Amino acid sequence: MKLIRFGETGREHIGVQIDGVNYDVSAFGGDYNEQFFAENGLARLDEFVKANAGRLIEIPADSRLGAPFARPSKIVCIGLNYKDHAAETGAAIPAEPIIFMKSTTSLVGPYDQIVIPRGSEKTDWEVEFGIVIGKKASYVDEDDALNYIAGYVLHNDVSERAYQLERGGTWDKGKGCDTFAPMGPYLTTADEIPDINNVRLWLKVNGETYQDGNTSNLIFSVAHVVSYVSQFMTLLPGDVISTGTPAGVGLGFNPPIYLKAGDVIELGADYLGESRQEVVAYSQK
Amino acid sequence: MKLIRFGETGREHIGVQIDGVNYDVSAFGGDYNEQFFAENGLARLDEFVKANAGRLIEIPADSRLGAPFARPSKIVCIGLNYKDHAAETGAAIPAEPIIFMKSTTSLVGPYDQIVIPRGSEKTDWEVEFGIVIGKKASYVDEDDALNYIAGYVLHNDVSERAYQLERGGTWDKGKGCDTFAPMGPYLTTADEIPDINNVRLWLKVNGETYQDGNTSNLIFSVAHVVSYVSQFMTLLPGDVISTGTPAGVGLGFNPPIYLKAGDVIELGADYLGESRQEVVAYSQK
Repeated sequence: MKLIRFGETGREHIGVQIDGVNYDVSAFGGDYNEQFFAENGLARLDEFVKANAGRLIEIPADSRLGAPFARPSKIVCIGLNYKDHAAETGAAIPAEPIIFMKSTTSLVGPYDQIVIPRGSEKTDWEVEFGIVIGKKASYVDEDDALNYIAGYVLHNDVSERAYQLERGGTWDKGKGCDTFAPMGPYLTTADEIPDINNVRLWLKVNGETYQDGNTSNLIFSVAHVVSYVSQFMTLLPGDVISTGTPAGVGLGFNPPIYLKAGDVIELGADYLGESRQEVVAYSQK
Repeated sequence: MKLIRFGETGREHIGVQIDGVNYDVSAFGGDYNEQFFAENGLARLDEFVKANAGRLIEIPADSRLGAPFARPSKIVCIGLNYKDHAAETGAAIPAEPIIFMKSTTSLVGPYDQIVIPRGSEKTDWEVEFGIVIGKKASYVDEDDALNYIAGYVLHNDVSERAYQLERGGTWDKGKGCDTFAPMGPYLTTADEIPDINNVRLWLKVNGETYQDGNTSNLIFSVAHVVSYVSQFMTLLPGDVISTGTPAGVGLGFNPPIYLKAGDVIELGADYLGESRQEVVAYSQK
């Protein structure tokens, strides 16, 4: 199944995508939130969709897509999880996963604008393979970790490098600005991805390819990071873990390349669809 | 006003404390959450309490107290914000506030147990003066920052030092374990504190005083940190910013002193009341 949400920001309705067409499933009730995932919502939604096959209504063609789930309790990210990306940033290969957190107020839809923060000069892109947690996870073994996953989502882990690296303290400062987490177009349920360790993901800026990686190159696998994070904090249904970005971010160039107003970012991943964000200045938003 | 929540974990009811007595205000409706603070809940609650003066029912004497507000969208913390604490940890005085984030799943009530994480050997205490945001805050000027604050709360920013400092990556790893954020006993509204820059806060372990500080020694003031954090992420009503801990944490001793099962922590602050947590091993919880 592919879950979508559509409508104006903060007032999204729920839907599903079937064979490339987006349908309204508001009649199912509720939102794709912690309660939905915790109360077996995916299975119940699947039944609802099958029971209403042929009767579902397409969403208006000009509908905005929101993030494909409600604001989670947290967005946890894994840093430097592709060898080539660690190398380009000049960092050592981590001995164990690096964890940081994005303020959930950064979450936006897959085609929403990215706003360069006021005064920012080093806003950068990062295509990522995101995990959506399906049930409460604490001290989960790696062998069992995939059973705690509802599905996956495309994520642009937008990052302000000066805030992240030059302003003291932890990376969180450069990761949680408003609009810094475009997610979607849809949440793809776990059953639809034959091999999560072989998913290509790519990102272009203004039509030029900057990132072209594959989850086969992750240093720490999807199962490993779910297990790992769950040793340090309890993961709730609907929470997101973003697994890291492959090489090709703006910071890795010499001189670095940063986003400016008017730039257009396109990104995509096998099974997870594609998204597109226009970059605007804070004064333009 | 002093806001409390009582009842079993995850099913708390709302209440207020008046002259040291806790009253049930469930009839007011809802919870002390984002919507409550956003929709002028404090003023409406104050009217409700006045209108029902003499008719409010005391809560049962054996009621558990929960955190005095619902799970916020985020708990942002300021690191090394007292000179004496920076010195004891061997860190330099930061040039600007250090930001890290606690997973909100760490939030518990003021008298709940603190669970030492599985395998942990370096669980430590930190008494803190916590800010509760009253309205949405983005790019707020320092002069205006206090207008965005609903009130204040006592917080034990429990920290696992090995996870925080020896496991790679950011501090978030050692800050968000379950039970690592006892808050309360109550939220004290901003109007009840005559001078937030002169609030004494203290912490004892097994009856011995380890921390005894005052917000007058904050490197970055309450107004400054609200303004500062709002430059990097939008603060939502009900969000918490914890302002840092004064000297006297276990890490600062030579050799360091860490918590063990059976320890009892008591802490308090002027205007914010006192709390008490028993420490238990993971296997005991």
